[in-house]
Amino acid sequence: MTTCKIHCQLHYKIVQATEFIFLVHAAHHPDQTIINETLSFNLPLSSRAFQDACHHNRHTRMHVEPCERFELNYSAIVQLHPQVSRELQQHFNELNVTDLPDEVLPYLLSSRYCDADALMDMAQRSFGWMTAGYARVKAIEEWIYHNIFYVSGSSNPLTTSTDVLVQRAGVCRDFAHLGIALCRALGIPARMVVGYVDIEKFLPDFHAIFEVYLDGGWVLFDPTRLAPVENLVRIATGVDASDVAFATFYGEIELLKIEPLITYTR
Amino acid sequence: MTTCKIHCQLHYKIVQATEFIFLVHAAHHPDQTIINETLSFNLPLSSRAFQDACHHNRHTRMHVEPCERFELNYSAIVQLHPQVSRELQQHFNELNVTDLPDEVLPYLLSSRYCDADALMDMAQRSFGWMTAGYARVKAIEEWIYHNIFYVSGSSNPLTTSTDVLVQRAGVCRDFAHLGIALCRALGIPARMVVGYVDIEKFLPDFHAIFEVYLDGGWVLFDPTRLAPVENLVRIATGVDASDVAFATFYGEIELLKIEPLITYTR
Amino acid sequence: MTTCKIHCQLHYKIVQATEFIFLVHAAHHPDQTIINETLSFNLPLSSRAFQDACHHNRHTRMHVEPCERFELNYSAIVQLHPQVSRELQQHFNELNVTDLPDEVLPYLLSSRYCDADALMDMAQRSFGWMTAGYARVKAIEEWIYHNIFYVSGSSNPLTTSTDVLVQRAGVCRDFAHLGIALCRALGIPARMVVGYVDIEKFLPDFHAIFEVYLDGGWVLFDPTRLAPVENLVRIATGVDASDVAFATFYGEIELLKIEPLITYTR
Amino acid sequence: MTTCKIHCQLHYKIVQATEFIFLVHAAHHPDQTIINETLSFNLPLSSRAFQDACHHNRHTRMHVEPCERFELNYSAIVQLHPQVSRELQQHFNELNVTDLPDEVLPYLLSSRYCDADALMDMAQRSFGWMTAGYARVKAIEEWIYHNIFYVSGSSNPLTTSTDVLVQRAGVCRDFAHLGIALCRALGIPARMVVGYVDIEKFLPDFHAIFEVYLDGGWVLFDPTRLAPVENLVRIATGVDASDVAFATFYGEIELLKIEPLITYTR
Repeated sequence: MTTCKIHCQLHYKIVQATEFIFLVHAAHHPDQTIINETLSFNLPLSSRAFQDACHHNRHTRMHVEPCERFELNYSAIVQLHPQVSRELQQHFNELNVTDLPDEVLPYLLSSRYCDADALMDMAQRSFGWMTAGYARVKAIEEWIYHNIFYVSGSSNPLTTSTDVLVQRAGVCRDFAHLGIALCRALGIPARMVVGYVDIEKFLPDFHAIFEVYLDGGWVLFDPTRLAPVENLVRIATGVDASDVAFATFYGEIELLKIEPLITYTR
Repeated sequence: MTTCKIHCQLHYKIVQATEFIFLVHAAHHPDQTIINETLSFNLPLSSRAFQDACHHNRHTRMHVEPCERFELNYSAIVQLHPQVSRELQQHFNELNVTDLPDEVLPYLLSSRYCDADALMDMAQRSFGWMTAGYARVKAIEEWIYHNIFYVSGSSNPLTTSTDVLVQRAGVCRDFAHLGIALCRALGIPARMVVGYVDIEKFLPDFHAIFEVYLDGGWVLFDPTRLAPVENLVRIATGVDASDVAFATFYGEIELLKIEPLITYTR
Repeated sequence: MTTCKIHCQLHYKIVQATEFIFLVHAAHHPDQTIINETLSFNLPLSSRAFQDACHHNRHTRMHVEPCERFELNYSAIVQLHPQVSRELQQHFNELNVTDLPDEVLPYLLSSRYCDADALMDMAQRSFGWMTAGYARVKAIEEWIYHNIFYVSGSSNPLTTSTDVLVQRAGVCRDFAHLGIALCRALGIPARMVVGYVDIEKFLPDFHAIFEVYLDGGWVLFDPTRLAPVENLVRIATGVDASDVAFATFYGEIELLKIEPLITYTR
Repeated sequence: MTTCKIHCQLHYKIVQATEFIFLVHAAHHPDQTIINETLSFNLPLSSRAFQDACHHNRHTRMHVEPCERFELNYSAIVQLHPQVSRELQQHFNELNVTDLPDEVLPYLLSSRYCDADALMDMAQRSFGWMTAGYARVKAIEEWIYHNIFYVSGSSNPLTTSTDVLVQRAGVCRDFAHLGIALCRALGIPARMVVGYVDIEKFLPDFHAIFEVYLDGGWVLFDPTRLAPVENLVRIATGVDASDVAFATFYGEIELLKIEPLITYTR
């Protein structure tokens, strides 16, 4: 069992009055236990917590008036205790659609960033011949790792999985989008997971990976190979990045600092 | 109050074993009351009803083995009694994001078919200068009606709102997608509604329109102008067509007959 | 007959050694006579003039080493004397492909910026039903004028005619690209023309319009309506903007000044 | 020296009167000598031969009235005698733009199917770090061979080099388009070459490859690896497939037979 200490700081200049919806709280999930957590701001603000009906993500919503510096601080201690070991997961098979639970079906559909429908032929051609199961998803993860360059700034808020294939570059969310789209195109339910993880060679940042539904449950994959999936403290789960942005906002702001720190004790 | 008699027939040849998820039941919604309804098949089949967590649509799921003819029949009597009159709705204003309920926020995001993010500039340029409120959405509806041709077969399962703008043609779902995308691009929550409605000059078919969230609640718009929105018996609501297909299937089939009949008694 | 005095200045900072191919000379064309012209630079440079085999445009090619300021000056006096009046052109008809001269056929093909093939259905739907001839091309010009916004900075070097339709905005080259694509999609040869023209409400800049081949020859159209086509001193003609950029360069530069001045004496 | 015997048959049903522009004649090119050639039809037709100004391709143009079967037959004996050996070409270097001949410059520009501008970053990322020269182009050829599937029917008349990257599949013209686009994106002039070649495992068909301009002249590459480039009898050269279609037509036809046979005597 790993104990994680999270200290996340987000600093903004608020140019025009802005409505924020944050996703920074660690998720309530069987693989992790939140020992304690606190959320605070540098200004006297009222915020509202709510969970969405689709993904049960823990949103924090607030209105912020123009100011030079608005700071959000989230601190938490979280224990990681995966219910199923990676060793076991390697023996998981794919399920026929008929055997998928109802609530998993939406993760077969195309979404804004994961245009699986456009990649149907490509996915069948490249991975359709492989034996179904964990190994096939692993092969997709590996293909992405070897064929897509990790390049900061190479993508933008409109970049779809198709675009990632063209430009052969992206950041973590793009790698995840491509993995998700390829899996869905093969009939494997897949979705995005974002969270806190320590990536040694990079400055602290939120991380995005994906998980697919196999016969033993949801299994995490990270085509960036930047950190072990076991080290991720999950924040949110969604169909793609549009569901799980750490900050969705309506207004005009400047991001001054983003520092989602995490440290581990084993 | 209008009483509607629905008789919907869907006939398929099942080439390979197929998993179906149908959306044919009238919705539970304050604007309509289901007096009675029956669902039946020409084969002894077990089906399962479920509601999804996001939109509470009434799905029917079943597995069908290969056969020459699989027939689904849905019959219902539904009373329509809109809670708010169109006259009243014309005085509704747009809400600031700050004043939107939490559960409405997802309808501001881009989705697979409604790529509002790609139309942000176009929407601002064309409709941004107008006074916010019902009249602005009505102007969008009218612009679509006058600038997009209704052409059967002009779109396909990959057609986005951007594509509709390019080809200047589409069918009802494309008209709705464009309306939704333009509204979201302006900060107005919008979503797709599908249902039964009688369109005199066309053969019976499912219809798709959209609704936007104004200060008095959700308001329906139909940029095709093919039928009064008051005549629609709602089946399902979703972010776009991917959520609300009358039949999502995994397998190989041929559609032999689609006849969602509706008749009215006033 | 109109006499035009052109004085064109282009100033650059040359960051890295750059190969330039300029198109600034007035064209040799039956509608205009070059009375005199001079090309000069602020630095001792050797330049080479050449005409390309396809369009006979008058290119000037040179190599420039890094420097703070490289200035090109082109001055000319040109007489405009259109061979065929606008009144006469209004009676021109479209030609069947069979009757088109061999050298005109390439202007039916799609090109980088004028993706006529992608607009085939849209063009047929919108303009296919009209009587062929000058009036139909005029209708296309008018449609563009009324449906596309002229917005500086709304397009970029990748913007195609399809993109212009989506964003409903562009600058002169985009307006021309859309006009060309729609004409080609209808089987009317069309190409881009760039030149010097005075546009009162704008700062001096190069202008782009298009011309189509009718039974009396090439006829100019300007969907921006920013200046009478009769006032344009033609520089170059091409399939689209890629052929007729006033400056194509390989290297690294900063554009400091662009001032293609023209004044008229009648 | 190889002697090639070409016998090309094209059969069509002409549904509506059609204007054809064929490219079936062997090119006049230093690497090949046409010993004799004949063109004939099954109907009494007048055809016109012309060469275009840009590429000097040998077009044959004719008008054909509706009929059940229109047959074109082209026979030729052509000697192949490459001026420069493949061994020598492997030592060719890339040229700086400054050293490129004027007439080669257009082959640096993006075109309808070779959207080099959209692949600039991808090309730099993937091949920009390599030593310039023949080996780099060979690496591009190899990358395409290993990453793109040759799949009949996987592309259509709108498929660009970007699309080929997405779908990871195409036919010979798509392979060539991608090679051309990547080279141009790196500043290497590149263009399409079509011709007759025997491909053992396929039915007879026209073939498309590409050539790039290095310091010793134009060098052929075939990323499909379906046949040695030395075996190709060149028909035409162009910026991309739009320039060098074996048949461009305006009208309505059905292709009944396409059989461009070639046999070799060494």
